[in-house]
Amino acid sequence: MKTKYLLFILFLFLSSQISAQDKVEQWGIYELTLPGPSAGNPFVGVTLSAVFKQKDKTYSPEGFYDGNGIYKIRFMPDQPGSWTYETTSNRPELNGKKGSFTCIAPAPNNHGPVRVRDTYHFAYADGTPFYPFGTTIYEWAFQPEERRNQTLQTLKKAPFNKARMLAVPPHSNRYLEGPAKLDVFPFEGTAKENFDFSRFNPVFFQRLEKSVAQLRDLNIQADLILFRPYDKGKWGFDMMDAETNDRFLRYMVARFGAYRNIWWSLANENSFIKHLSDEDWDHLFQVVQAKDPYQHLRSIHNADRMYDYRKPWVTHVSLQYYNAVKTEGVSPLLREIYKKPIVHDEINYEGTSAKRWGQLTGEELTYRFWNAYIGGAYATHGESTKTDWIGPGGELIGSSPARIAFLKQIVESGPKEGLRPLDQYYLTNVAGQYGKYYLIYFGKQPVKEWQFLLPDDELQPGMRFKVDVIDTWNMKITPVAELIEIDKLNNYNFVAKNKSKGKIKLPNKPYMALRIQLASQAEQELVQKKVKRNELTDEEH
Amino acid sequence: MKTKYLLFILFLFLSSQISAQDKVEQWGIYELTLPGPSAGNPFVGVTLSAVFKQKDKTYSPEGFYDGNGIYKIRFMPDQPGSWTYETTSNRPELNGKKGSFTCIAPAPNNHGPVRVRDTYHFAYADGTPFYPFGTTIYEWAFQPEERRNQTLQTLKKAPFNKARMLAVPPHSNRYLEGPAKLDVFPFEGTAKENFDFSRFNPVFFQRLEKSVAQLRDLNIQADLILFRPYDKGKWGFDMMDAETNDRFLRYMVARFGAYRNIWWSLANENSFIKHLSDEDWDHLFQVVQAKDPYQHLRSIHNADRMYDYRKPWVTHVSLQYYNAVKTEGVSPLLREIYKKPIVHDEINYEGTSAKRWGQLTGEELTYRFWNAYIGGAYATHGESTKTDWIGPGGELIGSSPARIAFLKQIVESGPKEGLRPLDQYYLTNVAGQYGKYYLIYFGKQPVKEWQFLLPDDELQPGMRFKVDVIDTWNMKITPVAELIEIDKLNNYNFVAKNKSKGKIKLPNKPYMALRIQLASQAEQELVQKKVKRNELTDEEH
Repeated sequence: MKTKYLLFILFLFLSSQISAQDKVEQWGIYELTLPGPSAGNPFVGVTLSAVFKQKDKTYSPEGFYDGNGIYKIRFMPDQPGSWTYETTSNRPELNGKKGSFTCIAPAPNNHGPVRVRDTYHFAYADGTPFYPFGTTIYEWAFQPEERRNQTLQTLKKAPFNKARMLAVPPHSNRYLEGPAKLDVFPFEGTAKENFDFSRFNPVFFQRLEKSVAQLRDLNIQADLILFRPYDKGKWGFDMMDAETNDRFLRYMVARFGAYRNIWWSLANENSFIKHLSDEDWDHLFQVVQAKDPYQHLRSIHNADRMYDYRKPWVTHVSLQYYNAVKTEGVSPLLREIYKKPIVHDEINYEGTSAKRWGQLTGEELTYRFWNAYIGGAYATHGESTKTDWIGPGGELIGSSPARIAFLKQIVESGPKEGLRPLDQYYLTNVAGQYGKYYLIYFGKQPVKEWQFLLPDDELQPGMRFKVDVIDTWNMKITPVAELIEIDKLNNYNFVAKNKSKGKIKLPNKPYMALRIQLASQAEQELVQKKVKRNELTDEEH
Repeated sequence: MKTKYLLFILFLFLSSQISAQDKVEQWGIYELTLPGPSAGNPFVGVTLSAVFKQKDKTYSPEGFYDGNGIYKIRFMPDQPGSWTYETTSNRPELNGKKGSFTCIAPAPNNHGPVRVRDTYHFAYADGTPFYPFGTTIYEWAFQPEERRNQTLQTLKKAPFNKARMLAVPPHSNRYLEGPAKLDVFPFEGTAKENFDFSRFNPVFFQRLEKSVAQLRDLNIQADLILFRPYDKGKWGFDMMDAETNDRFLRYMVARFGAYRNIWWSLANENSFIKHLSDEDWDHLFQVVQAKDPYQHLRSIHNADRMYDYRKPWVTHVSLQYYNAVKTEGVSPLLREIYKKPIVHDEINYEGTSAKRWGQLTGEELTYRFWNAYIGGAYATHGESTKTDWIGPGGELIGSSPARIAFLKQIVESGPKEGLRPLDQYYLTNVAGQYGKYYLIYFGKQPVKEWQFLLPDDELQPGMRFKVDVIDTWNMKITPVAELIEIDKLNNYNFVAKNKSKGKIKLPNKPYMALRIQLASQAEQELVQKKVKRNELTDEEH
């Protein structure tokens, strides 16, 4: 009797350990914590998932073992209101746990996860457009706290809203000794011993989660890189067998899937992991696709063998092909080929590295950024100056981030639909939206004067446009004083009705652009008034 | 008894009508002619094919009705020696016909059909490399004889070894009245009446075959365009139902498949045939793939919606995307994406057309050609001057063909493996084969001096290279007198050991190139001798 009584007390105690919030904001994380078996290998022997339900909607995220006899199931509710759940497990103590909670409205800065919008673009789940301006901080999450905090401080002031980061550290002496020496790894073991690939190290992932959450709190998407080839034959993290790879992916999805700012990058430079074929990558994609209840964005970053981004489980193109932004007009072609958003995720870095991928001037990186966006695509920054931002993060000292911020401001204040290449079979440097908005980029070509000329789509004689001259390097926008009234030139183009007014003066230096926008009625009237008052000054030089 | 006797005579007579050659050259056409039923609709009701056999090899081409009670089966034997055949038909008079013939060695100019070679290139079946230099003569086959002969005379002197041509005429007043008025069409009927899409007009195809054969005899590949959108709602040739489309394809394959110079171009500007989806095109490709015993090259030429050239039935990319050759470095990316040969089959035309696709200078078209080949790709010429070559053919008066011939000569005398982009992640203007051959193109950029610098792959200190300065517009090749001995610069590049010798002088004008080739032992010795004799003259300016 006594034993039974004690067991009952123990049962009550354990039951009370099933903890979870009562309320969670939409696209926040509802976390169910369950005590369970710690004997044997909980990472392999225990299955756990839960069905979360609201009316007809159900999601079935998998749970995961978080060490110390604790299991967790995380859920990202996508609708306000009441949700119920019930767990399923091959272990009775984890099975059939039921409950409910309330999902409340999201906080003002929470727009949900990012999705593909209109084939070539992105938006948050609440419809807010998301224009990626990425950066690369591969190893920031593995650094000592001070450096991580410095990175976060830097990001707070930087224009970047997406960060490429490794989930698994590269093999590096930095992590074997000195202040950044790692005490935890993705798997049980220490750097000098053999890892037990059947056992994850929850502490490693708890720390990684903290970094992902910190990015989320800064409204930065975590483009989390699941596999990487940077092991130099040491730890074995890129030589795991197929079963381990699958288990690793499921663990990652179970742990990170409920973070709304997650993007899955299946790999960095995938083809440098020589033993994995494209068919292997197909399978790994499919595991993530099958297990992620929220269908976060998925892509893969190529090295010398390009994965076929047209495959259905790839949501967007994550390209490493520098030359695609070294000249104009390539991104529109990539859009046609892939019919997906194009993100140039590695276009060389601004810096002074001994490696040639890290030797760009700020001008050149900014130029490549503009080429990407003018092509209806997106790009990712990297800096390999002496502060080595692309590795451990820390401080940005390059000259491109300010210019990227300037471009971002232009893009974000541009058409809500994003930039599309205009008249792309003939033009290579014009993006916008027909009839409304044109961004013309002259790149390295110094131009003294540009004769107003637009492709004819959705134009009518008599429309009036306002023109801004943009110095993309000096970050200056100079409005042209007068509106331009347009007239039809031929089957292809419209020009300024008054030819001399159509002569737009430019300062004959590189990196200039023009922004041409349909004038609103109010703007037209305002300009009319100004003209009458002879208040117009020529600011266009 | 009398009747029986007469029937026997008739049988003998009919049997004697089964005619065919005794001998045919390898990759020539063996044609079996069979009398058969002409009642009803022989195009629809009669099935006919034959199995051609040599040892373990069998081919089963379909036959076709050629009018006047005559059926034909054509076969292209690909091995010398004895072949047997036996027909199969749902009509007894066409069924079970057997015979044999001998395939003899091909004539010297006959290298067989063209195949894909080494992923990105082409070769004839006998292994001879084929470097496409295409031209466009969409409607030449529908012209009066005199014009057709003029076209053939022009082609005889031109550099082009592939011709894009329509199998079905576009709707045009030219064909409704005047000297080019058509008296036959692909289907029974006249231009003013409704066509009977269930009945082909054999005379039309007999004439088309003659044109294909004439190209073959000039060693020109016939890139035969099966569907086209140029009907203006008139004849209905681009609005046929699915069953008719399939029957048309089978008829085309039966008639033309045995011509060794056939390439199947499923369509020109396919997406302008609005009612056919990509899935419809998949199916049409698959029909050709299933019916063509010889697996001739297959592609499709895009308009505003790009077909996915990665699909397995597409053998090579046949692109219309002008901007892909307006700048450097795009073709290498296309190679990576498609992993197939890239043929830029429409890059705008040299000409004076009112249409903007036909307004290139000869310089610009030549420049685009060079960009294609330097990118490891191929291109197709077109001329829309007053002689309107791209339509009815006739005479070439543009300035680009001579320059294209010059480029062709360089390519054909280059490495047998063809040109591949070198160090393509960083360079955009160098093609060749590592360690042996480098072609560097400066495009529109005038260059006064080029400092010898090659990517390090397969180079060793002490290797010696000969350099030619190439004026691609004036078609002049000027050898640099001295060989350049190379030395390692860094992890990426080799330079001239003697820096001042490495200064290659160029004439500071656009459209220049350099050819750098590993010197043979004999060349090295020759130069040594010359140096000793002080016979060297500086020819490099």
